[in-house]
Amino acid sequence: MRTIIMLLSLIVASMSASAQDVKKLPEPNKDVKMTLFQSLQQRKSVREYSDKEIDDMKLSQLLWAAVGINRPDGHLTAPTAINAQDISVYVCSKDGAWFYIAKDNALQKVSDKDLRDAVAGRQKFAAEAPISLVIVSDNAKFRGASTNGPTISGAIDAGYVSQNIDLACEALGLATVPRATMDKDALKTELKLSDTQNAILNHPIGYPKK
Amino acid sequence: MRTIIMLLSLIVASMSASAQDVKKLPEPNKDVKMTLFQSLQQRKSVREYSDKEIDDMKLSQLLWAAVGINRPDGHLTAPTAINAQDISVYVCSKDGAWFYIAKDNALQKVSDKDLRDAVAGRQKFAAEAPISLVIVSDNAKFRGASTNGPTISGAIDAGYVSQNIDLACEALGLATVPRATMDKDALKTELKLSDTQNAILNHPIGYPKK
Repeated sequence: MRTIIMLLSLIVASMSASAQDVKKLPEPNKDVKMTLFQSLQQRKSVREYSDKEIDDMKLSQLLWAAVGINRPDGHLTAPTAINAQDISVYVCSKDGAWFYIAKDNALQKVSDKDLRDAVAGRQKFAAEAPISLVIVSDNAKFRGASTNGPTISGAIDAGYVSQNIDLACEALGLATVPRATMDKDALKTELKLSDTQNAILNHPIGYPKK
Repeated sequence: MRTIIMLLSLIVASMSASAQDVKKLPEPNKDVKMTLFQSLQQRKSVREYSDKEIDDMKLSQLLWAAVGINRPDGHLTAPTAINAQDISVYVCSKDGAWFYIAKDNALQKVSDKDLRDAVAGRQKFAAEAPISLVIVSDNAKFRGASTNGPTISGAIDAGYVSQNIDLACEALGLATVPRATMDKDALKTELKLSDTQNAILNHPIGYPKK
């Protein structure tokens, strides 16, 4: 009996912990004025950011643009090879790291640590952005499920999502640069990636420095 | 003397042939109304096309969006790893195949053959689109210049350009699907690719079938 009560308490505790670890984002406002062709005209890589924080609405808009659901059947803003939906996006800020749950428009906390240094790797400028997004591909979503690093399909799929982020940053008044440099081992551990998941690209993002 | 005259005639003949083989495109009209977020909302893969031809203005808009120059210093609408600018885009139609010269907004003819069957490969639907774009990455633009097939960087860079094409098709009222299937050997020969160039993705493009 005592064991059962202890087990029940543990289950309740873990449930409430996991509820606290999921944060619902506001519905993304898609009424953003910039045309596609304007955003293509303005697309550029920027490596200096102000320290102004990015609020949850901007984050929601950014994540939806990157890899959000755009149809009732669960299809995404970015295509994926054989519709594998192999891509996950993580948000890193000074307060921790989160996995973006597209279908719930929510963030699941995966770490309490500030991982922006791990994202920056050797290029310190990248750690100064208030957030970094990390684009991860899972080989297990493809036939074969190799654990030997990223696949060509996964790299293509990461490129789609990365370009959505590039263009959305222009439309939202934000600055970014897509990067392949990062401390992949540290991120694999801290983001709790599986053996078949590879961080392929990242995006430090902030408002442009005045 | 006779040899010199023959040589001069040959040079003049080859110059005029190469001038004929370059076709200037109209300046792309960038005043296209669809917002970025609308194009992300509408992004989808379509595999049925009407037989209506795509005119040179639409082609110019499409190619500029894909991998056009958007700044005076020659930077492009799509980023590339270490700014390698490894990507080339080819246009295939019933009348032949052309290489897009971004800096001149022009097309250089590379084949008189209709290569749409080679682009379609096993999936015949793709040959029915009036044009197909082929996205090629050149390993020689990266350190190492392997001839052993595509690199991860090249695949990412192809993904950027492919997503630009996806979104531009929505904004221009066109339909497309990004594909990795194609007869790569035939295209390598007919597009006159070098040993370090790899066709990574292609896009059949047409107006949506009514």
